[in-house]
Amino acid sequence: MNFNVDEKLLHGGDYNPDQWLDYPDIIDQDFALMKKAHINTITLGVFAWSALEPEEGHFDFSWMDDIFARMNQLGGNVILATPSGARPQWLSEKYPEVNRVDERLQRHTHGFRHDHCYSSPVYRAKVKLINTKLAERYGQNPALAMWHVSNEYSGECFCDLCEANWQRWLQAKYHTLKALNDAWLTSFWGGTYSSWHQIKVPSQLASTKIHGMALDWRRFNTAITIDFFDAEVAPLRAANAAVPVTTNFMAEGPGHDFIPLQGLDYGAFAKHVDLVSWDSYPQWNNDYEPLAETAMKTAFVHDTFYGLKEQPFLVMESAPSRVNTPVAKLKRPGVHALASFQQIAHGSEGSLYFQIRAARANSEKFHGAVIGHDGSDDTRVFKEVAAYGARLSALAGLRKAKRQAKVGIVYDWDVLWAQHREAAFGRDRKRYFQTLEDHYAYFWQHDIPVTLVPVDHDFRQYDLVIAPMLYLMRPELMTRLRAYVSQGGTLVATYFTGIVDEHDSVYLGGWPAPLQETFGIKLGEFDSVYPDEHNHVDFAGQQFETHDYNQLIEPVDAEVLGRYQDDFYAGSPAITRHRFGQGTAYYIGPRTKRDLLNVLYASLPVVQAELARLVAKPNPAVSIQSRVGQGERTYFIMNFSSCPQTISLARPLIDCESHGPLLGQLVLTPYRVVIAKERA
Amino acid sequence: MNFNVDEKLLHGGDYNPDQWLDYPDIIDQDFALMKKAHINTITLGVFAWSALEPEEGHFDFSWMDDIFARMNQLGGNVILATPSGARPQWLSEKYPEVNRVDERLQRHTHGFRHDHCYSSPVYRAKVKLINTKLAERYGQNPALAMWHVSNEYSGECFCDLCEANWQRWLQAKYHTLKALNDAWLTSFWGGTYSSWHQIKVPSQLASTKIHGMALDWRRFNTAITIDFFDAEVAPLRAANAAVPVTTNFMAEGPGHDFIPLQGLDYGAFAKHVDLVSWDSYPQWNNDYEPLAETAMKTAFVHDTFYGLKEQPFLVMESAPSRVNTPVAKLKRPGVHALASFQQIAHGSEGSLYFQIRAARANSEKFHGAVIGHDGSDDTRVFKEVAAYGARLSALAGLRKAKRQAKVGIVYDWDVLWAQHREAAFGRDRKRYFQTLEDHYAYFWQHDIPVTLVPVDHDFRQYDLVIAPMLYLMRPELMTRLRAYVSQGGTLVATYFTGIVDEHDSVYLGGWPAPLQETFGIKLGEFDSVYPDEHNHVDFAGQQFETHDYNQLIEPVDAEVLGRYQDDFYAGSPAITRHRFGQGTAYYIGPRTKRDLLNVLYASLPVVQAELARLVAKPNPAVSIQSRVGQGERTYFIMNFSSCPQTISLARPLIDCESHGPLLGQLVLTPYRVVIAKERA
Amino acid sequence: MNFNVDEKLLHGGDYNPDQWLDYPDIIDQDFALMKKAHINTITLGVFAWSALEPEEGHFDFSWMDDIFARMNQLGGNVILATPSGARPQWLSEKYPEVNRVDERLQRHTHGFRHDHCYSSPVYRAKVKLINTKLAERYGQNPALAMWHVSNEYSGECFCDLCEANWQRWLQAKYHTLKALNDAWLTSFWGGTYSSWHQIKVPSQLASTKIHGMALDWRRFNTAITIDFFDAEVAPLRAANAAVPVTTNFMAEGPGHDFIPLQGLDYGAFAKHVDLVSWDSYPQWNNDYEPLAETAMKTAFVHDTFYGLKEQPFLVMESAPSRVNTPVAKLKRPGVHALASFQQIAHGSEGSLYFQIRAARANSEKFHGAVIGHDGSDDTRVFKEVAAYGARLSALAGLRKAKRQAKVGIVYDWDVLWAQHREAAFGRDRKRYFQTLEDHYAYFWQHDIPVTLVPVDHDFRQYDLVIAPMLYLMRPELMTRLRAYVSQGGTLVATYFTGIVDEHDSVYLGGWPAPLQETFGIKLGEFDSVYPDEHNHVDFAGQQFETHDYNQLIEPVDAEVLGRYQDDFYAGSPAITRHRFGQGTAYYIGPRTKRDLLNVLYASLPVVQAELARLVAKPNPAVSIQSRVGQGERTYFIMNFSSCPQTISLARPLIDCESHGPLLGQLVLTPYRVVIAKERA
Repeated sequence: MNFNVDEKLLHGGDYNPDQWLDYPDIIDQDFALMKKAHINTITLGVFAWSALEPEEGHFDFSWMDDIFARMNQLGGNVILATPSGARPQWLSEKYPEVNRVDERLQRHTHGFRHDHCYSSPVYRAKVKLINTKLAERYGQNPALAMWHVSNEYSGECFCDLCEANWQRWLQAKYHTLKALNDAWLTSFWGGTYSSWHQIKVPSQLASTKIHGMALDWRRFNTAITIDFFDAEVAPLRAANAAVPVTTNFMAEGPGHDFIPLQGLDYGAFAKHVDLVSWDSYPQWNNDYEPLAETAMKTAFVHDTFYGLKEQPFLVMESAPSRVNTPVAKLKRPGVHALASFQQIAHGSEGSLYFQIRAARANSEKFHGAVIGHDGSDDTRVFKEVAAYGARLSALAGLRKAKRQAKVGIVYDWDVLWAQHREAAFGRDRKRYFQTLEDHYAYFWQHDIPVTLVPVDHDFRQYDLVIAPMLYLMRPELMTRLRAYVSQGGTLVATYFTGIVDEHDSVYLGGWPAPLQETFGIKLGEFDSVYPDEHNHVDFAGQQFETHDYNQLIEPVDAEVLGRYQDDFYAGSPAITRHRFGQGTAYYIGPRTKRDLLNVLYASLPVVQAELARLVAKPNPAVSIQSRVGQGERTYFIMNFSSCPQTISLARPLIDCESHGPLLGQLVLTPYRVVIAKERA
Repeated sequence: MNFNVDEKLLHGGDYNPDQWLDYPDIIDQDFALMKKAHINTITLGVFAWSALEPEEGHFDFSWMDDIFARMNQLGGNVILATPSGARPQWLSEKYPEVNRVDERLQRHTHGFRHDHCYSSPVYRAKVKLINTKLAERYGQNPALAMWHVSNEYSGECFCDLCEANWQRWLQAKYHTLKALNDAWLTSFWGGTYSSWHQIKVPSQLASTKIHGMALDWRRFNTAITIDFFDAEVAPLRAANAAVPVTTNFMAEGPGHDFIPLQGLDYGAFAKHVDLVSWDSYPQWNNDYEPLAETAMKTAFVHDTFYGLKEQPFLVMESAPSRVNTPVAKLKRPGVHALASFQQIAHGSEGSLYFQIRAARANSEKFHGAVIGHDGSDDTRVFKEVAAYGARLSALAGLRKAKRQAKVGIVYDWDVLWAQHREAAFGRDRKRYFQTLEDHYAYFWQHDIPVTLVPVDHDFRQYDLVIAPMLYLMRPELMTRLRAYVSQGGTLVATYFTGIVDEHDSVYLGGWPAPLQETFGIKLGEFDSVYPDEHNHVDFAGQQFETHDYNQLIEPVDAEVLGRYQDDFYAGSPAITRHRFGQGTAYYIGPRTKRDLLNVLYASLPVVQAELARLVAKPNPAVSIQSRVGQGERTYFIMNFSSCPQTISLARPLIDCESHGPLLGQLVLTPYRVVIAKERA
Repeated sequence: MNFNVDEKLLHGGDYNPDQWLDYPDIIDQDFALMKKAHINTITLGVFAWSALEPEEGHFDFSWMDDIFARMNQLGGNVILATPSGARPQWLSEKYPEVNRVDERLQRHTHGFRHDHCYSSPVYRAKVKLINTKLAERYGQNPALAMWHVSNEYSGECFCDLCEANWQRWLQAKYHTLKALNDAWLTSFWGGTYSSWHQIKVPSQLASTKIHGMALDWRRFNTAITIDFFDAEVAPLRAANAAVPVTTNFMAEGPGHDFIPLQGLDYGAFAKHVDLVSWDSYPQWNNDYEPLAETAMKTAFVHDTFYGLKEQPFLVMESAPSRVNTPVAKLKRPGVHALASFQQIAHGSEGSLYFQIRAARANSEKFHGAVIGHDGSDDTRVFKEVAAYGARLSALAGLRKAKRQAKVGIVYDWDVLWAQHREAAFGRDRKRYFQTLEDHYAYFWQHDIPVTLVPVDHDFRQYDLVIAPMLYLMRPELMTRLRAYVSQGGTLVATYFTGIVDEHDSVYLGGWPAPLQETFGIKLGEFDSVYPDEHNHVDFAGQQFETHDYNQLIEPVDAEVLGRYQDDFYAGSPAITRHRFGQGTAYYIGPRTKRDLLNVLYASLPVVQAELARLVAKPNPAVSIQSRVGQGERTYFIMNFSSCPQTISLARPLIDCESHGPLLGQLVLTPYRVVIAKERA
């Protein structure tokens, strides 16, 4: 099994020979070109169920056998997909229950990929069968490096089977209806349940106004997705427990944002995979932000997926050039290697693409591919991919090399969901992940590594814990945070912290005591203002504009670092610091732009200790990230701008590619990446 | 029964002990705090059906008995709600017919409050039973002050039962299909009905293009709502006919507007209640208009609800602080008393809130409450409410005191619906209620009282009748308006007047003769222009910009007061005055901004007689409103700005709170309200 | 039959006496006024089914007999509509299958006009019966001039009957599932069909992601519509094969656009009608563009409908004044004749209106009408219509007179659909018809006639063929274009040409050889940029801005006329010219504004030969169009501006109305139309 024994970083991506079975010349050509492009890995079989089982119970693995044989010949890896992401037509037709019921309670026919019911016993049985066949046939194949289970799990189903599972899940969680009614406060608007069967799925024809239910529905949807995933995995593990299992997670970009998928709790899901992988499609060289901003957001998502297991991950898909979006812009020359090395720098075990060969029709026909419709190796895209492949294959010692961060940003999908669900204070203005990015930005710009830490992880290893907007908090988290600070940690929190319990129900009797103790404050009124309204805070001798939210603070024994300047609460505290036990806790009352956060973070002793590690003066257009393994620290020095940029190294490094020394001033041409190392 | 015997203005609001049945300490605390806040009234039982009848036929009134006992002890009022606004889950589950069918003809399951079918015999029977139980148990209770029937009636149902009622209602109205086909002009697009069963509810799967049908559907929906209301009331009256009955009406704010609810004909509905009440949620201190503009719009809605019966009304709900909207901004210090006294000034019998105790979860958990989640009396909100309560309880002689207006704005829900339905001339540009506000603004700014008068009221008591955009007019209204003018009234009308009959069918043969006679004009072409296109009118020596609509006028024997300045109708009449009999009729051809209306109204003799009643020079940021009762006129002098404002009293008054004299110049601090009186 | 024997241009329009059967005075009045307005033609019976067959099997033709009798007396034409555009209520009620099923798979009840299923055997039988009755009764009536079959065919149905037809149509086209699966590349996302029944209609509950299917669905929808039309026509032809048959086509105006209807392939449909007719509703005197721009867009649509058969057509509907749109602005004085003569100038056989008498209610009650609700002949609209009628009736020799164009713009509905379906490169930025208008604009502004030529026509008669964005191309078209150029033609093509085959599947192996040969280039990368991003091209000594799309070009033996100026492909070819055989082929790589196109077209020898035909210097606000027949060329010289405009005639003409000579400088008052002629 190559993946475990091979020390090479992976290079390759999705390959769909099942679209080309009538074109043997093209498959031959593909393999010749893959070799030329230094491709060592293909992801095979995504959406191939129809090709593997064209009629119910009639299987055809011959074409897949051929591809495995070719990959073994090449000495490469196969990441083998289970095909559940797209049902065969005969399956949808014969067993309609496998298709989803939508939010209008209408059953879909076949047609959409990713549109299967996670509850359907028929679907589970059919998936088990095809997965078992694949596992038995290829589980011991030397080319098999990893399992890619299904594809981009997402969405939800409102069918009767899911409704029954929902009710069972609730019953297992709450045991009694009284407990559920209390947790959800169903007496509000008089909806007290008197039987489990009354609890409908929250379709558009049923209730969608109970916040606790909405939150539980999201949790249930994560649970049923993971349960389906686990069922998919069982036959794979049975065939060969040594082959690692993953499924490709996603990010999404509402508007100009780029953040992790909001629909599933990847923190919970990550516990079920051996390796986190994800599909990365940022919009490079867009017209709405500098390239470095795009790079920062992408780094944030990389560090989120790294943090899920606090281990290296894998970019399972990325675009060799244009992305299939409304503006499908070409990657500029040099950006491909830049974006790809950034993946490695943040902990990816390789760079995989969607797609190796461009499909000739349908939704993604113009999505970038290593091999275009012309089948040529004389295109800019092919040449940049091949050059990157050559550079990648020359790097050693990076597999399993870890990131080392002393700064953790603690976050939670429950918080995301609960905040977003709340209509007051502006549903679309909450911007939870985007606010985390605002805090993250300072560190990225100063080349200080950060890990995004799910709230149930042990965060004591981090010198600085940043926990913005932890609106929903369980008591045990309050206790852990208090202990973290009292034992010497530095904690930064903000408005919208510790307001509701796990049922999205407001804590009674004022802000919870552990938080009051930790931060040395009580909370006053919370002012939500109009988009064009601003207060100001004086802090560190400067004035900063606030927007959206101003939390008033009543200090108990905290120091006041900043005060509001305007409106009826002018002069009242806005930012506080509390020395508590061995540590320090900061509370930021208003939402501000990054300017204030930058000044605050620059002032923290734990941050100052991290600064100037490698360069005296960070260049905000140049990102320096590193991984540590086998006694070495490897730096990726990346110019995220279309102009030359200069940095000054504080001490000499070895260039990993020229093997010569690097020291003093380093001038990076546009988009250039320098890879260098030192003893760790 | 406190309400009738008690002369105190009401202070209090919605109280939901049914959310706190497991928290006896909190209920104790609530009553202690209510006393402290000078609360004398609670609205009880809204959405409490589940708590009262947790299983079909099993009733539990113990908790309500307890609250009644506490209120009797306090000497306060209970406004008791019937609980039909939210069905119990068991009812929705066992009898699906009680749930609404939506515009896609899909039956909802339980879940939404306010989502019950008004036609369902089962629902009517179940509501009758619970209402009867409540009436029998509490109808003679000394604390019972009023019935609050259901909650915020609105919406519509498209089920088969409603379809049958719709067909019956049409049959009762039209008697023959021929009459209906003629009224609706069904021969247009060939949809002549040949049986009553063909007339479907106007769902999205059926016809929605017949204007007469759309209008009748709105009327039917009002009728079935009132019919349901009347059925709810019957057992209440049977138990004690002396207890007044109301239901809470609503206003709505599409975008930055604030106008009465558009979906129901409250003019018709008001005839069925003993007292009009409504839920008032303006957006104070928003970022899109001066506070005085918000105050003017709110005053307009108060005067609309006053006008429904031309009697004092009751604000049934308002927010002690933030409103549960996307920007849930805090009320600024002082604004609470300002907004609440404005209610009293315009004729409310008290100030009631949603809510006394904040719900700990779900949709309104962050809506303002007298008692917050912290249960404290040491919050700004609590203290402002208590201070207002103290001021309110010290006022005497205001209950049943009336407003006195010589200016009436005549309007009609039929007009609203017919205008809006018409796609030509811009569905969203009609802005009927908003245009009424434009006319109203002059009077509000000059402290001249106005009543909004439904079109079927006798408007002869008003010296000035303003009737903008009466697009749909029945012949009898034309006759009444002609008689009003000929007998000495002053009438102002505009473009979009007298165009269609009660079926939304255009009058044939030119503008109706009674209107021609009254205004002394014929109508020429009607020019609807693009949003950025403007004509100009010269009037009273100034130039005014027109927008949206320019009605051309052919004077017969009217004087021309203003003429268009541009385009091919430059020089043609735009504004006319007609001395007719003893009176005068003005016609305004174009839509203009308020500037022209202000000049016009300032010039009217009937307006000049109203001016300078109390102050020589009105201050547009200060509103002065008054009520007259028991031989006294009580003035509310309200500073709707965050700056000090000055007015000069024309004659001395007595300050109702200090009991000292007020005269000469009066300086009002920001948001301040002065209450003063004189002999009426 | 008047139409064929009468040499008069038609004047009149839709007339609906079936709305006025109880108003005999009005019908008398209408005929008196029609005579006064020089109306010689009425369109009768649109939506009259209910009036003709009020109960199933009970027919009443008496009122229609009366109208025919009146028209015969008047010596006028009847264009008789089949009434299928609106089913009677009894038909929808008794046979629900006649009503459409919508994209959510829900069956409509009666209500919408144009909402009938084209597959329903019941509907076809009922339509056949009523059409037969009409044909038998009026087929030989001397007033009958033409059949107007149904009304504004459009839309689609998703019912089971349509699904079966869809599957039959696919089976007839592809014969085998293998062929269909290959054509649609169903192996992409694993949707290979294993039975014909699996191929659902593309409702919102089924697949909508297969591009080849989406394209075939549009083709099927055109096919089933035409099939229904043909079935309607059969009984009409059987009764009298000499009466011409048409149906009214449409244009549409998404936003500020004005383009042919996009939903149906009118190129295919036109082969089934005897004469093309269409309903023309441009937005004259809007606020978003100069009047000349509106005129140009309208001319473009006229020339499209002329081009469908390369024969004169008929404007079946137009507005005598305001159009029933959100801004229903009056036509300015003089614009009516201007817009109406433009119809004639571009090849219409007359000017017909919707409507002669304004309906008194429902959707179009405020749409302009010759006779308004006041029934007066003393309105500006009536007088302008009558004056136009008088001018029209005085013109002779124009019926059947043709347009003569040497410039053809070649286009295809398949291209429109395939381009639009593709999400990459911005679904809403493709703007196919609008781009054709950009190319067309130069010629319109220079008074050079252009015909829009469907791609399957023989375009060899055109000296210049402009074929922008022919994204989808069949090989035979490539061959024909190559032959056209090699035999001496001039061809202009652009980015997005020859990319996909008839199944919307990308050509493999690079740009197809016939195109490479014709244009002497290969294609490089294709850069789709953000809306605010621009490259520049230097061309003919000027700089031009590009937007949206930049196709990179690798010249083989073409000359480079322009190069990109910016970004990483600065200096690379943007515009090329290729002398090929006897002809020349131009290729334009980027999307530009009209500025570059204007310079390019002005430079073409074939264009220069067309210039200065009648005026030395075209005035862009004056459009000169001509028709040739009976040995004469008649010019329409139209001032599309509100200012006087001057042109200088290169040679003398005869004024068709004054019969005097016209020569030298001609000053046109605002909106004026001069009609003049010379020997052809």
